[in-house]
Amino acid sequence: MKKNTTPVRGTNDYLPQEMAIREKVRNSILNTCKSYGFMQIGTPILENIDNLLDSDGGDNLKLIFKVLKRGDKLDLTQPNLTENDIVDIGLKYDQTVPLVRLFSNNQNLLPTPFKTVQIDSSFRAERPQKGRFRQFTQCDIDILGDNTCNAEIEILTTVVKALENLNFKNITIKINDKKIITSLINLCGFLPEQTTNICISLDKLDKIGIEGVSQELISSGFDAQKVAQLLQTITLLKENNDKYCELLPQYAVNQAVIDNFDCILSSVRLLTSKNVNIIFDPTIIRGQNYYTGTVYEIFLDGMSSACGGGGRYDKMIDKMIGQDVPAVGFGMGFERICLLLQESNMIDSLPNNLALMYDANDDFVEVLKYLQTINTNQNVSAILTKKNFAHQLEILKANGFTKFCLFKDKKIKNL
Amino acid sequence: MKKNTTPVRGTNDYLPQEMAIREKVRNSILNTCKSYGFMQIGTPILENIDNLLDSDGGDNLKLIFKVLKRGDKLDLTQPNLTENDIVDIGLKYDQTVPLVRLFSNNQNLLPTPFKTVQIDSSFRAERPQKGRFRQFTQCDIDILGDNTCNAEIEILTTVVKALENLNFKNITIKINDKKIITSLINLCGFLPEQTTNICISLDKLDKIGIEGVSQELISSGFDAQKVAQLLQTITLLKENNDKYCELLPQYAVNQAVIDNFDCILSSVRLLTSKNVNIIFDPTIIRGQNYYTGTVYEIFLDGMSSACGGGGRYDKMIDKMIGQDVPAVGFGMGFERICLLLQESNMIDSLPNNLALMYDANDDFVEVLKYLQTINTNQNVSAILTKKNFAHQLEILKANGFTKFCLFKDKKIKNL
Repeated sequence: MKKNTTPVRGTNDYLPQEMAIREKVRNSILNTCKSYGFMQIGTPILENIDNLLDSDGGDNLKLIFKVLKRGDKLDLTQPNLTENDIVDIGLKYDQTVPLVRLFSNNQNLLPTPFKTVQIDSSFRAERPQKGRFRQFTQCDIDILGDNTCNAEIEILTTVVKALENLNFKNITIKINDKKIITSLINLCGFLPEQTTNICISLDKLDKIGIEGVSQELISSGFDAQKVAQLLQTITLLKENNDKYCELLPQYAVNQAVIDNFDCILSSVRLLTSKNVNIIFDPTIIRGQNYYTGTVYEIFLDGMSSACGGGGRYDKMIDKMIGQDVPAVGFGMGFERICLLLQESNMIDSLPNNLALMYDANDDFVEVLKYLQTINTNQNVSAILTKKNFAHQLEILKANGFTKFCLFKDKKIKNL
Repeated sequence: MKKNTTPVRGTNDYLPQEMAIREKVRNSILNTCKSYGFMQIGTPILENIDNLLDSDGGDNLKLIFKVLKRGDKLDLTQPNLTENDIVDIGLKYDQTVPLVRLFSNNQNLLPTPFKTVQIDSSFRAERPQKGRFRQFTQCDIDILGDNTCNAEIEILTTVVKALENLNFKNITIKINDKKIITSLINLCGFLPEQTTNICISLDKLDKIGIEGVSQELISSGFDAQKVAQLLQTITLLKENNDKYCELLPQYAVNQAVIDNFDCILSSVRLLTSKNVNIIFDPTIIRGQNYYTGTVYEIFLDGMSSACGGGGRYDKMIDKMIGQDVPAVGFGMGFERICLLLQESNMIDSLPNNLALMYDANDDFVEVLKYLQTINTNQNVSAILTKKNFAHQLEILKANGFTKFCLFKDKKIKNL
């Protein structure tokens, strides 16, 4: 019986050409981040299920792939079975939970601030769609242990450089601070405990618009007048987003928060090229509850949604080990970046692959001996010429071969 | 409450220094294999559970991490629950099952023979021990669609080159052919259907010795005289392993099998350096049932067990899609190689990491501007000098920093 040979729903096989692009993007991002002083670490795919379920992952917690217990630990015969009884491990849904665990477990061995980069697969059992998969690669950079805005400045300039090194030209950073939006919400007369729910609605602004957010908040029972006032304030600030230094003090935002925010924006401007835009956007909220300060997203030309985002999450290590360690991070949307590069043919050079064609009469040892003399600076594959050469050539080209030559009498002839 | 911050049992966190070694090994192996014409592919961690359980993985099938069904598909209330009812996905336990699935699913798009390399994590729920983990990296190279011994020659010369490029000097390939050992077993009077069980015992020869294998076979009910004859033959061949061309015909081994075998050994000798040994060893069996022809393992100085192995598995694609596609592969033991390189200090150069020390009075934008002028050929990290500088230096060195300099007035001073 023929078996099912398609990959698991929402996951992908990568053929040579696609894999070459992914490797190039992977290595380019890693090299840029390392050149800016971020040190690569690695964390397991498998994570203790309790660490995942106790994390501030919001909706992601509903999407965790759970791993069955094994051996004697698994008892399917007990009554009233719950998932809890039969599961002990989950697959990581992001890189932040394992990073925080690794740091907490190795703090004495690591420098503080700890600047780090990781690239690995994450897993979420969500509905697959274009550019969104159940197994996907995430590249995160983080700085743990720096409570100054230097951390945001380094993270953002490094991410911009990583994107520029991938040939992206027009880069827009939209940045906000949870403390700013919280001040605005409180000023409109909402109670502190209502902030989270209001933020969840505001986060949808780019999808459902001002009207949609207004309706959602009012139907949730919030006072219509207060809602109108909040949305007016946000609209005003968004329309005058370069005047935040003058405007924000009028909305009771703490001056230290404004100064810190302004330091980030002006420093990033000084450190990046003219094509890079960094703008205040009070509607950047980010879903995750764990953000405590700045939040930001980066947009590229030709991409409707962000290619990545992050922010400051100062309480997460405290929650894990009861120790106050501030933290700032950025997660790059590796899959979206690869998709955009592929669709727009922006990858300028992939490795040179040479097909060294031989025929059945050739001495194979001689072919390989010759190959060994020319494969130091290029990839060379010894390939037996087929009868249908035109078709063979076509398939080889589609798989990334760029040069073809014929082996004859210990010499080669270009094709 | 302080949470459990250790990694899941049998898995590892990798700190910067260890990760730098792993990255170097990863990229070195990949680059060598690519330079010999092997094209990199990627397959998901998640695999259809049926594909895994139907595979010829032997004991590995007992070690599969199984993933719980999600949403409505999971019903824990039904009576007489079995694992089958609640599981739909498993984590791949090797790279061969997904490779064969990928090839079967994309055959028309790929060149044949298809020479490919992949490096990724595999997962096995076995008892963790030194160098053996539940999540571990495997690097496999394979040639699908070549029924000649050219495939073995290319695989073995490429693997040797990959190991030499990692500075390994004395490399021994022990090679056998399932057809040879089958002939020997049959010649001693055993029935064809007994071959598999006898091979399972013979595979333990390096662990339990001739006496142990003899006892095991006899206590399994095999005829003592036949067992003695088989073990004598094997011992004789092992002691005269350079005379296989003269000896094997006396044991009714098919001449075509001997010629093919000899072609591989003599070709690999011609294509590799003097420090590389390739020898016939009739006790190399390999556990997996799927091998149909040559089987081999590679040994390095200072390593008691093999650093990898493989062989010909001509029937696996047939089993998946009912189509005859011959296949040869080699799996490199990435974890063992990294462990050996680390323990023997064989990694000659890791990336240069420069610590650019500044103090709180420095303008951070100026520090980063300066950093951007010197980080094109090295990794540079801007690091705030601490009061306890001696300890800070120690930690930075332990994390891979090799050079230190002080930023002052837009210039640097080496430390």
